[in-house]
Amino acid sequence: LVMSKGTVVLAYSGGLDTSCILVWLKEEGYDVITYLANIGQEEDFDAAKKKAESLGAKKVFIEDLRAEFVEEFIWPSVQANAIYEDRYLLGTSVARPCIARRQVQIARQQGAQFVSHGATGKGNDQVRFELTCYAMYPEVKIIAPWRIPEFYNRFRGRKDLMEYAEKHGIPVPVTPKAPWSMDANLMHISGFWVCIWPRNTDLLAIVLSEKALSNLLWSLRGRHGVGRIDIVENRFIGMKSRGIYETPGGTILYHAHLDIETFTMDREVRRIKQGLGIKFSEMVYNGFWYSPECDFVRHCIDKSQENVEGKVQLSVFKGQVYILGRESPRSLYNEELVSMDVQGDYDPCDASGFIKINAVRLREHHRLQGEASSNR
Amino acid sequence: LVMSKGTVVLAYSGGLDTSCILVWLKEEGYDVITYLANIGQEEDFDAAKKKAESLGAKKVFIEDLRAEFVEEFIWPSVQANAIYEDRYLLGTSVARPCIARRQVQIARQQGAQFVSHGATGKGNDQVRFELTCYAMYPEVKIIAPWRIPEFYNRFRGRKDLMEYAEKHGIPVPVTPKAPWSMDANLMHISGFWVCIWPRNTDLLAIVLSEKALSNLLWSLRGRHGVGRIDIVENRFIGMKSRGIYETPGGTILYHAHLDIETFTMDREVRRIKQGLGIKFSEMVYNGFWYSPECDFVRHCIDKSQENVEGKVQLSVFKGQVYILGRESPRSLYNEELVSMDVQGDYDPCDASGFIKINAVRLREHHRLQGEASSNR
Amino acid sequence: LVMSKGTVVLAYSGGLDTSCILVWLKEEGYDVITYLANIGQEEDFDAAKKKAESLGAKKVFIEDLRAEFVEEFIWPSVQANAIYEDRYLLGTSVARPCIARRQVQIARQQGAQFVSHGATGKGNDQVRFELTCYAMYPEVKIIAPWRIPEFYNRFRGRKDLMEYAEKHGIPVPVTPKAPWSMDANLMHISGFWVCIWPRNTDLLAIVLSEKALSNLLWSLRGRHGVGRIDIVENRFIGMKSRGIYETPGGTILYHAHLDIETFTMDREVRRIKQGLGIKFSEMVYNGFWYSPECDFVRHCIDKSQENVEGKVQLSVFKGQVYILGRESPRSLYNEELVSMDVQGDYDPCDASGFIKINAVRLREHHRLQGEASSNR
Amino acid sequence: LVMSKGTVVLAYSGGLDTSCILVWLKEEGYDVITYLANIGQEEDFDAAKKKAESLGAKKVFIEDLRAEFVEEFIWPSVQANAIYEDRYLLGTSVARPCIARRQVQIARQQGAQFVSHGATGKGNDQVRFELTCYAMYPEVKIIAPWRIPEFYNRFRGRKDLMEYAEKHGIPVPVTPKAPWSMDANLMHISGFWVCIWPRNTDLLAIVLSEKALSNLLWSLRGRHGVGRIDIVENRFIGMKSRGIYETPGGTILYHAHLDIETFTMDREVRRIKQGLGIKFSEMVYNGFWYSPECDFVRHCIDKSQENVEGKVQLSVFKGQVYILGRESPRSLYNEELVSMDVQGDYDPCDASGFIKINAVRLREHHRLQGEASSNR
Repeated sequence: LVMSKGTVVLAYSGGLDTSCILVWLKEEGYDVITYLANIGQEEDFDAAKKKAESLGAKKVFIEDLRAEFVEEFIWPSVQANAIYEDRYLLGTSVARPCIARRQVQIARQQGAQFVSHGATGKGNDQVRFELTCYAMYPEVKIIAPWRIPEFYNRFRGRKDLMEYAEKHGIPVPVTPKAPWSMDANLMHISGFWVCIWPRNTDLLAIVLSEKALSNLLWSLRGRHGVGRIDIVENRFIGMKSRGIYETPGGTILYHAHLDIETFTMDREVRRIKQGLGIKFSEMVYNGFWYSPECDFVRHCIDKSQENVEGKVQLSVFKGQVYILGRESPRSLYNEELVSMDVQGDYDPCDASGFIKINAVRLREHHRLQGEASSNR
Repeated sequence: LVMSKGTVVLAYSGGLDTSCILVWLKEEGYDVITYLANIGQEEDFDAAKKKAESLGAKKVFIEDLRAEFVEEFIWPSVQANAIYEDRYLLGTSVARPCIARRQVQIARQQGAQFVSHGATGKGNDQVRFELTCYAMYPEVKIIAPWRIPEFYNRFRGRKDLMEYAEKHGIPVPVTPKAPWSMDANLMHISGFWVCIWPRNTDLLAIVLSEKALSNLLWSLRGRHGVGRIDIVENRFIGMKSRGIYETPGGTILYHAHLDIETFTMDREVRRIKQGLGIKFSEMVYNGFWYSPECDFVRHCIDKSQENVEGKVQLSVFKGQVYILGRESPRSLYNEELVSMDVQGDYDPCDASGFIKINAVRLREHHRLQGEASSNR
Repeated sequence: LVMSKGTVVLAYSGGLDTSCILVWLKEEGYDVITYLANIGQEEDFDAAKKKAESLGAKKVFIEDLRAEFVEEFIWPSVQANAIYEDRYLLGTSVARPCIARRQVQIARQQGAQFVSHGATGKGNDQVRFELTCYAMYPEVKIIAPWRIPEFYNRFRGRKDLMEYAEKHGIPVPVTPKAPWSMDANLMHISGFWVCIWPRNTDLLAIVLSEKALSNLLWSLRGRHGVGRIDIVENRFIGMKSRGIYETPGGTILYHAHLDIETFTMDREVRRIKQGLGIKFSEMVYNGFWYSPECDFVRHCIDKSQENVEGKVQLSVFKGQVYILGRESPRSLYNEELVSMDVQGDYDPCDASGFIKINAVRLREHHRLQGEASSNR
Repeated sequence: LVMSKGTVVLAYSGGLDTSCILVWLKEEGYDVITYLANIGQEEDFDAAKKKAESLGAKKVFIEDLRAEFVEEFIWPSVQANAIYEDRYLLGTSVARPCIARRQVQIARQQGAQFVSHGATGKGNDQVRFELTCYAMYPEVKIIAPWRIPEFYNRFRGRKDLMEYAEKHGIPVPVTPKAPWSMDANLMHISGFWVCIWPRNTDLLAIVLSEKALSNLLWSLRGRHGVGRIDIVENRFIGMKSRGIYETPGGTILYHAHLDIETFTMDREVRRIKQGLGIKFSEMVYNGFWYSPECDFVRHCIDKSQENVEGKVQLSVFKGQVYILGRESPRSLYNEELVSMDVQGDYDPCDASGFIKINAVRLREHHRLQGEASSNR
């Protein structure tokens, strides 16, 4: 009779890695609860449940987080025009705190002192998972096997995992799965895939004041080729890595939101909000969704969106998003004011004064430069 | 016998507006020198020259600025990843200081105290032209007819200009030209145009350390549909206006440079440089190319590019740019370091400490929140 | 019988300038309402009232704005740690929108289409007054005599004003007043003054959650020498000017707030808020208190202050403020955590991992540098 | 006969802690080279040398780094107006990379694979030392005893160290030294001290283009009470700690530089440079002096200083610095331009246009707000 070391809630994908981790944790003397979040990926959740049970999980949680993922995570990111290093729409980053939050909720509720995950020791996801865990459950103990020498020295490659699986009756996929990790959710897919080029033009009208984006995101899922990028990015742990992403829903929403935002938001508010959005993106990428600073910035960005509503027409053609037009009851675009034919309330002479006053400083600088060069 | 009020150098396009301004300035008692810059637009420069001479220009300058436009203006903008309000690649903004610089050089050299232009009183271009003039020739006097009541009250629409043209023997285009202004140069076209959709995939390999971009930009000109946007933007004078742009060369270079930059530049340098690039874009859009702050920022951005060189493969397909790969002798991407199979010099255990120390602050915050809520 | 050109609400100080303006506006055919705000300056308000009436003001408003000045203007500035160009605590800038807001309220209520003020044509105050007026009463017409050629060419110096005053029965101060403007309010004094050096140490305990700062600011008024600076600053209109300020209340509050803020606010929230505070200071200095961006930033800063409360002990000694200690129910300072003798929940080994991961990027950079130099 | 584990270069202060570490490292089987940097602290360097030798150091390096400390570290910090969290002048932070740089130079030159220091496991100094070491000597191994369980569990307090010292013949100070660490250099003193209040007014004229600040800093050392602060600050590792500093030289230079900088630098350059200075301060505080981003920012700040030269008069009175005046051949202050009596080249009417164009956006916003409220 062996005493249990305690209960661990394992983020379980049903794949080879986390199945091996499940069995290994049991070997190490833990009671294991598995947890699998549904955030819109294609997955046989029933099969995953049965597999976990057959491997000895004490309990199995399959949690449908799609609604909260869209409302509490994707939507704030769309509002922020969140984009990391000018290109990556954070499809994976934004899912991690959503998944980890439920994991620690289950851990607290089940009285588990431990949580575990299968993220590697060089990536961003370990940070995103664990910072969320520590922020919401400060006393939690985290078991990250890929950072434990006894584990990573034992499992040096896929071959070692396969052997372990066979030995412990873990069902092994017949076709050898790609050796890279793949991440998919409502917003995007990361990893490599077979390319299906787009064939048709889609015309969409997106109403951005509507917060129930779930259906929209589902319907945007299949638009292959939209938002596909091949980039090198800077991980939080200080390495450059290559990432390949396809973010159809996120890309379309990004462009639509950017458009209606500029249409309805004051220029200077936009400038300040743009800076906050860049900070937000870095925080989310680095795993700080649950942090005082990210709370603060989300609040500020949310405030900036008070007047941001409207409808954007766009076409999705051959993998690219074209904005066709926009309308909003909160538009700050004033056709008459900007017209070349109507003066309206605007006196062109004022522009002369405006320009001359803006030039005061430039002319002074020129004077100094001139004096400097004549003195040299 | 009438005394001349002085000599004015007029930025002359050969079109209806500036032809009328030429004649009007003469009527007002000025000697007029016309000046037309070649920055890569399609134009019959000989015809423009003859037209100006026939309308009474004392002298006519046709200046080929293409090389300096590319080297001194487009290139620094590419290095800055310059983009205004997340979308506009500044194709017009970046040309204005280049054109105006030569204009004041001519004015100084010809002893002219005045410069003039046909930009409207509500736009950005008046500011960009004039700030450059004041910065480089502080004593210059600027005649902006579209801000002078006697002028703009007399010419309230195209019809008035046509009548004036006929009366003064100004050749009038047979086909009625579009009533909106159109701006084209090596980098982009602004305005409305007939849409020619792209048909083929182009594969390009852009070598970004090469500064002689002229040929490249020429060859990219015809790629219709690349970099086409329909946006609402915020003008410096405080209005929102609609802009339609097509920036094939600029868009391709933007993506290629962004890619090789992230490949070769340290993450934190990139963050700081990104902020400087945003500031640079605002300055350029607002007309402050020739300002101490823009000089300063250009210098800083140039410094950041010391290691940015390499070759980017990309495909241009149906109006969109896809990056296919990159290589550089200055790459900071270390395949072995980032590999999941090789530990190399990296100890995964360090990541545990890294995460835990990053969590210290988050756990303290949780503690405070908990105390606060239990005290309430 | 002459028709009135309309009614103008004049910001009236009782001094020579605005008394002459009052009479001049009447001469020009306006009905004049005078308005004088009490924001804590030392002033004989009764005498000013009588003087305005005797000079023909249709109505005279003396408004006590001290409470709203403190609560709505000084307090948000303290929360922002507002400081312009690292030194100026904005004592004048922050008063202008408070004064101008009431002025347009009176104008609207009295059906006046015009407002007027005595600010000069080279200063910041004209901008601060007028942007507030335009923002709150967009149709208002502003009469700024010091920018009207007929006025400023007529009154080229104090002597011209004196002669005009004598001619029109405007009481002239017996002692020649200093030729520079002087501005005083609850927060500060600007201008030159006779120096009274401080003699004693004051010990203060400031409770910063208390919003009723009026009494405090009154009691701090007399502390000569605190917060005295002699600076060159950059005006919004592009000139450098010299400013001499003494801000006893503002300086003490600045230091006290800075101290309790760092004590109770998360580090990263503070960094973001610091950036917002700098932006806020520039907006306020430049006259954009009533702007969408300043509204937005004030809201964000206010949000950041949720946990900022506590008591700061400080000494005011010989013109300088020394913080002696602080306490707060919302403190994030954890003596045990930071102690060198107690490990507590902190494992020093984690710091090794933290440092090594932070070094990954630096070592990669070194590698690149090394390769670069060996290849050259 | 025992094989040496290798050679370690120990940053040695001569005090109890590092003396015990020296002996402990020997016990552990290392050859120990001690190294003590002279950066202006009051120290008996000869005594320290003899002590180290008597304790078995293989070699002893006493290095006079005062000149390079001033020129390469203090001076760039003065140029940056470097200040952490609005208050701390970084007197300790700026010294660490200077000290650690020489340490790794010695290590390389002596063929040592190890470096060691006595910094604690909760502080900033461990990070500053080690990031410098890793950046300049990526393969170095660092021994930080206060993070090694065998060491810190053995030496749980001063008493344990004293006992160990007695046992190993380490001379122990007769008077019990304060249990807190004290750091002093040319720029500042950190820690607690006996308070000597200032007595006299000092009048100084500081010429800021002169880079040889050593003598100046020496002469400023004794001015007790200048730049004394008691603050709570945020450590890089995520804790708040209390710090007490006195930075006479640094404070005087900070004020003098700030003054001459605003006098000679364009407003907008200053704004951008201010942001870079804040980033610089954070980097230096966090230990990233030797990083690509800090190199980059130092370069940019240095560029911004091209015109920053001149002479500042100031008085140091009772612990406070008052600026009395400034002069510079590169002054951008134009007395005539800013004068209220002279129009000069400035037309006050331009200010009307400037203000009205700045108001366009504010009035549009008001219009939207009005429509919004009337529609609700």
